[in-house]
Amino acid sequence: MTESLEERQPHADTVHDVHELAVLDRIFPLLPVADSQLLGPGDDAAVLAAPDGRFVVTTDMMVHGPDFRLAWSQPHDLGWKAAASNLADVAAMGARPTGLVVAIAATPDTPVSMLEGISAGLRDACALLAPGCGVVGGDMSVSDTLTLAVTAFGDLEGRPPVLRSGARVGDVVALAGNAGVAAAGLRLLFDEGVDVSGNPDPVAAAAVRAREPRLVGAQLAPTPPISSGVDAAVAGATAMLDVSDGLALDAARIARASGVCVDLHRSTLGEDVESALRGGEDHALLATFGPDATLPAGFRVIGSVRAGTGVSLDGEAVGGVLGWDPYVGWDGRTG
Amino acid sequence: MTESLEERQPHADTVHDVHELAVLDRIFPLLPVADSQLLGPGDDAAVLAAPDGRFVVTTDMMVHGPDFRLAWSQPHDLGWKAAASNLADVAAMGARPTGLVVAIAATPDTPVSMLEGISAGLRDACALLAPGCGVVGGDMSVSDTLTLAVTAFGDLEGRPPVLRSGARVGDVVALAGNAGVAAAGLRLLFDEGVDVSGNPDPVAAAAVRAREPRLVGAQLAPTPPISSGVDAAVAGATAMLDVSDGLALDAARIARASGVCVDLHRSTLGEDVESALRGGEDHALLATFGPDATLPAGFRVIGSVRAGTGVSLDGEAVGGVLGWDPYVGWDGRTG
Repeated sequence: MTESLEERQPHADTVHDVHELAVLDRIFPLLPVADSQLLGPGDDAAVLAAPDGRFVVTTDMMVHGPDFRLAWSQPHDLGWKAAASNLADVAAMGARPTGLVVAIAATPDTPVSMLEGISAGLRDACALLAPGCGVVGGDMSVSDTLTLAVTAFGDLEGRPPVLRSGARVGDVVALAGNAGVAAAGLRLLFDEGVDVSGNPDPVAAAAVRAREPRLVGAQLAPTPPISSGVDAAVAGATAMLDVSDGLALDAARIARASGVCVDLHRSTLGEDVESALRGGEDHALLATFGPDATLPAGFRVIGSVRAGTGVSLDGEAVGGVLGWDPYVGWDGRTG
Repeated sequence: MTESLEERQPHADTVHDVHELAVLDRIFPLLPVADSQLLGPGDDAAVLAAPDGRFVVTTDMMVHGPDFRLAWSQPHDLGWKAAASNLADVAAMGARPTGLVVAIAATPDTPVSMLEGISAGLRDACALLAPGCGVVGGDMSVSDTLTLAVTAFGDLEGRPPVLRSGARVGDVVALAGNAGVAAAGLRLLFDEGVDVSGNPDPVAAAAVRAREPRLVGAQLAPTPPISSGVDAAVAGATAMLDVSDGLALDAARIARASGVCVDLHRSTLGEDVESALRGGEDHALLATFGPDATLPAGFRVIGSVRAGTGVSLDGEAVGGVLGWDPYVGWDGRTG
């Protein structure tokens, strides 16, 4: 009987008009298959390999409004960013990403082509950032608010996970990836990706993205250095995390967990130090290494670990609100 | 610096007024710790044991509107049902549930007490339905639509997963758990859990739940027979799935995947055969066993596997729309 349902409206345009199974039939072929997949989508659950008897798991939700605007992000961007941000959390443990499960709640008027675009973004992010990683399962729901929930898995390949709590006085602080670039892109979108009334506008956003592809692209489709996570672990990183909420706030998390002070060097943070310190969503990897470690390619020294607490900049404490808080920061707009 | 943020509004009532970290500090102590947890919440990702080198994974989203009404479900119910429905998918593979990750997107005006209630529901469902399973990680977001996304993991304990595709002609069809009870509860809520205008009403819902606790409870806080999943696998189940969309539709999935006809016996389906066939959300386990297998406790024979296709009732094909489709079925109301 399910066949007749699937065939009812094969060419309709929105998820409301197309049966769930037909949506899945259009999406599945787009999704990357994970090398570690032992059983893929189509049963009650998937089965994934965990060769060393453990697996790393993280989950992150992207919500229309606080996390993205449809006037700014292409569907491909949404899938890409949902994958990239979760892959970065796996990488930050020193693990190799192996698989994703993806739950999408779409409004009834969502074009199926948007879900296909999201799927292509998931595929391309896996292929570029974490080859071998794929989508092993998912869920499709309907909602008043477009929402993507991704859960990502990783293989520690026999190594201990790299925690936030391992930084020691005397370690060097190093960064792989951008600091403040995604935030600069977001500022451009808020300033110029809008119409005369200040509302997010797709034409204006496309124009600013064409003019500043690096900055706007860093916000809408970030390319975190996923493979650097394993490299850092192999090189003996003592602590590591994914910089999602801003360098200052995330460095404070290492400082707090490790019982140390993270001192950042102003000269390493570029011209716009404020953006570098407080801008989130770059998904760079912030790590500490023993003083004698050889930093893996892609990491640059941006500070040192000292006795004390919190975060300092050339020895001076960094204060103020340190980063984005979803509950306090969202103004309720969507667009 | 994070301490000062956490302490800013320690007694405020809504998630908008309380910093994310403070919300997490209030929720984490409520959540159950998984026996398989090697590293829990607090880093970029958790680490979970997968003793036989594989793990089962499933994900399912619950959305305000199509999946629940806040006038009917208590916060405890929401957490309970989100856990139970995912645990059932793990059990349907013949696996023992080991852990959950939970992403919650709440509206800014959500009372923190609601998140505490959801957490208590997650805890109690794990404790009663799958002892040893716990919450190993999560994510908190803000949204216009209250949304829970749960991903659940399981341990196959060295056994092959029980697929939908293994039913063979001559097998018996057996069910553990309810069929149609949750649907009967939902009908009661739509009929009597409403005010004079037909809108969901908490006082009316509480009254009908007090009068019909088994039916309404089956809808709002189902108790699927989770441990029966492992029992079925050990007893040699040839196919199995979680009945979430209705017995007829889910039996058709086994029939299609296995290339057989699933014939159900009307006499086993109780007085309300229509509800038993088409009512979803009971999260019973539907399994097939070889003719000589000894059924584990909790399973009762409800049919047999025949040559052919689709689902029949005492040999007569079952037609019509077989179950719930989220994209077509939701009327857009919340309440």
